[in-house]
Amino acid sequence: MSGSEYTEVRDLANHAGAEVTVGGWVETLRVHGKVAFAVVRDGTGLVQCVVARKDLDDATWELGTTLTQECSVSVTGEVKPDARAPGGQELLVRSLRVIGKSEDYPVQPKEHGVEFLMDHRHLWLRSTPQRAVLRVRSEVLQAIHDYLYREGFTRIDTPILTGSIGESAGTLFSTDYFGETAYLAQTGQLYVEAACPAFRKVYCFGPTFRAEKSKTRRHLTEFWMVEPEVAFADSEANMRLQEDFVSYLVERALDRCAQELELLERDTSTLERVRPPFPRLSYSDAVAVLQERDSTIEWGKDLGGADETILAGLHDLPLFVHDYPKEAKAFYMKENPSDSRTVLCNDLLAPEGYGEIIGGSQREDDADRLLARIREEELPEAAYEWYLDLRRYGTFPHSGFGMGVERTVAWITGRPHVRELIPFPRLMNRLTP
Amino acid sequence: MSGSEYTEVRDLANHAGAEVTVGGWVETLRVHGKVAFAVVRDGTGLVQCVVARKDLDDATWELGTTLTQECSVSVTGEVKPDARAPGGQELLVRSLRVIGKSEDYPVQPKEHGVEFLMDHRHLWLRSTPQRAVLRVRSEVLQAIHDYLYREGFTRIDTPILTGSIGESAGTLFSTDYFGETAYLAQTGQLYVEAACPAFRKVYCFGPTFRAEKSKTRRHLTEFWMVEPEVAFADSEANMRLQEDFVSYLVERALDRCAQELELLERDTSTLERVRPPFPRLSYSDAVAVLQERDSTIEWGKDLGGADETILAGLHDLPLFVHDYPKEAKAFYMKENPSDSRTVLCNDLLAPEGYGEIIGGSQREDDADRLLARIREEELPEAAYEWYLDLRRYGTFPHSGFGMGVERTVAWITGRPHVRELIPFPRLMNRLTP
Repeated sequence: MSGSEYTEVRDLANHAGAEVTVGGWVETLRVHGKVAFAVVRDGTGLVQCVVARKDLDDATWELGTTLTQECSVSVTGEVKPDARAPGGQELLVRSLRVIGKSEDYPVQPKEHGVEFLMDHRHLWLRSTPQRAVLRVRSEVLQAIHDYLYREGFTRIDTPILTGSIGESAGTLFSTDYFGETAYLAQTGQLYVEAACPAFRKVYCFGPTFRAEKSKTRRHLTEFWMVEPEVAFADSEANMRLQEDFVSYLVERALDRCAQELELLERDTSTLERVRPPFPRLSYSDAVAVLQERDSTIEWGKDLGGADETILAGLHDLPLFVHDYPKEAKAFYMKENPSDSRTVLCNDLLAPEGYGEIIGGSQREDDADRLLARIREEELPEAAYEWYLDLRRYGTFPHSGFGMGVERTVAWITGRPHVRELIPFPRLMNRLTP
Repeated sequence: MSGSEYTEVRDLANHAGAEVTVGGWVETLRVHGKVAFAVVRDGTGLVQCVVARKDLDDATWELGTTLTQECSVSVTGEVKPDARAPGGQELLVRSLRVIGKSEDYPVQPKEHGVEFLMDHRHLWLRSTPQRAVLRVRSEVLQAIHDYLYREGFTRIDTPILTGSIGESAGTLFSTDYFGETAYLAQTGQLYVEAACPAFRKVYCFGPTFRAEKSKTRRHLTEFWMVEPEVAFADSEANMRLQEDFVSYLVERALDRCAQELELLERDTSTLERVRPPFPRLSYSDAVAVLQERDSTIEWGKDLGGADETILAGLHDLPLFVHDYPKEAKAFYMKENPSDSRTVLCNDLLAPEGYGEIIGGSQREDDADRLLARIREEELPEAAYEWYLDLRRYGTFPHSGFGMGVERTVAWITGRPHVRELIPFPRLMNRLTP
């Protein structure tokens, strides 16, 4: 029970011929006359346990042929190499103990409705495709930290509870904070900007919140975002960082999650082509392209999902769309010196219809212009005093971006709905389990 | 401006004799007759810029001798090795440009009151000790992920917004969630337990929330916690994991943050002794020890801060206190089979008066006992249905712990107050900046 008495399934090859004990959960059981095959998952892999009538006493044979889905077991047996077995090893059972029963396990190997699965998310997690997507998520998260660490970024955890500051007041969750009102952060960007003069390259990584009444396959009310920010970097450098970063994440998933991607039947050929540079299209050119294709988009409006799909379909690489109209984007983006109707910003659209995974921009570094924009947008000026201080005391050019984890991993794993890409999704109509 | 035109200070040694441009912020300026020394910080290091009257035109000399604290500059000059200079290189200035002025910078190199500094946290971050502690924090965070990745843990991000489930209903922040009430998570533990049957070793890492009316140097309303959870591990294995994990984090900080720890005047000799095994004391023995030392503690009560200080003072290593009375601990801890008055759990107390940094336990894996405890504590039973499912379908022995990031880094850096260990602290009376 201390852990050391159990051999992990992924290590079985090192114990060929030896007797070991495995602790795990029964996924399937097939009984063929005098022999039964139980596939046991221990969280590190799957192993087929061979229950042979001739080797066992009556009680063990009885137990071994009546194992139920997801009961937990301790199985002792001899490790036998078998090229046909998953993982390359079988376990010839000598003794067997059921640790925890499992009667009428709710999630059966059949089609269930989405709401049923979501109600049973705490059990659904054990299923093969869900394990695979969450393994890829975990690998991508580590890759995010590894890339930024290697590149000299300092991690700055930004607050979740904030005063009245954020992207869009209409979609904020709020809470009573000892008599004041606090809001759940929609972004850590403004805070990482403050850390730039201390560390030059910084990032935050954490949950962010949008109280949006959206029920699309691309919306969560709680999602995870990584937001790098770099001092003395302009919009051009920002896009170069993004394409290098995204390429690294994809390469890492291909390299270390090959098994999971295969299991998910992901066509990896498109992912294998993902390397810098990514194609770029200015917003104005994008509008022209869309109008040629009968979109109703007019210059000045933000792109819709359908527009993004058309644009992303032009390429089999992620596509930068840059320099959007000022009125379509957030107040903190820097005015484009060569076209004051637009701001220095970009979205990054994933190919194959997965849509926007990154939004980035150079930040307005002029105190007067920033204040004018805050007033234009009728934002609560006092709440932005500290943010304006960053422009009053040694302002500096800087740029950054936010990448949504769930959307990015949806694209990498080829899953259509972001609700599968986070362990316990929060949607407009879903707060449990 | 694209970033590539600026040489980072940490790379200057590779450019000895060459002309480079550095972009950063002026920390100090000293003028001595015909020469001035400006120390510029670019976020990767400090470099002394030598402004020599004889080399410069009038305008540049004038500019170079009137630089103000925290103005941002672009400095072009020749890199000259100088063993006495910080970083080993000086910059002989040839030209100079002020990017952003800084007049009457609020955070002066003098004593300020704590509230003043906290009001100016967005600027205070730039100061030398604050940069050092946050660098150590960033290193420890990466070390947390690296250790767990290496040991085969899968990262499971647990929800912040939850239904009515948590440790202690009296200290929950709540928010309206489309007509329902959601609570901000105090722990991700219950959710990582659900992921154990999928991945065996899992962890969550994120912000957690306590609406506690505490104004001590050890309390934040929003703090970061790492919570590993391991299937088929008992309390003994759990403590072994904790001592190995903590030792790794300390070693990593010593190895990669030597400069920061020196700057903070941290006596590292005690940290250097931190390696497994850590001393252990049962709660019952701890009470006896305390009573000998005139503590008023009675068996059955939780240890107070003063008690912890006495116990931690017995050793110069972190100290495990284990197997507390049931009534002093959370409902989900497993009853001790050899003393049913107690549960299989531990706290880990840091030495040198830094107190508890970890709480861990083996979890109750018996559905009936767990339900009885939920009822005893009068918790909302329906909200725990999914958690009870984990015991109904293939229950398994498992253990885990939560380590508070800020308290751990406070100990490693030797800082007395946790408010400095997080970039933007949230305290009972502090929600900004």
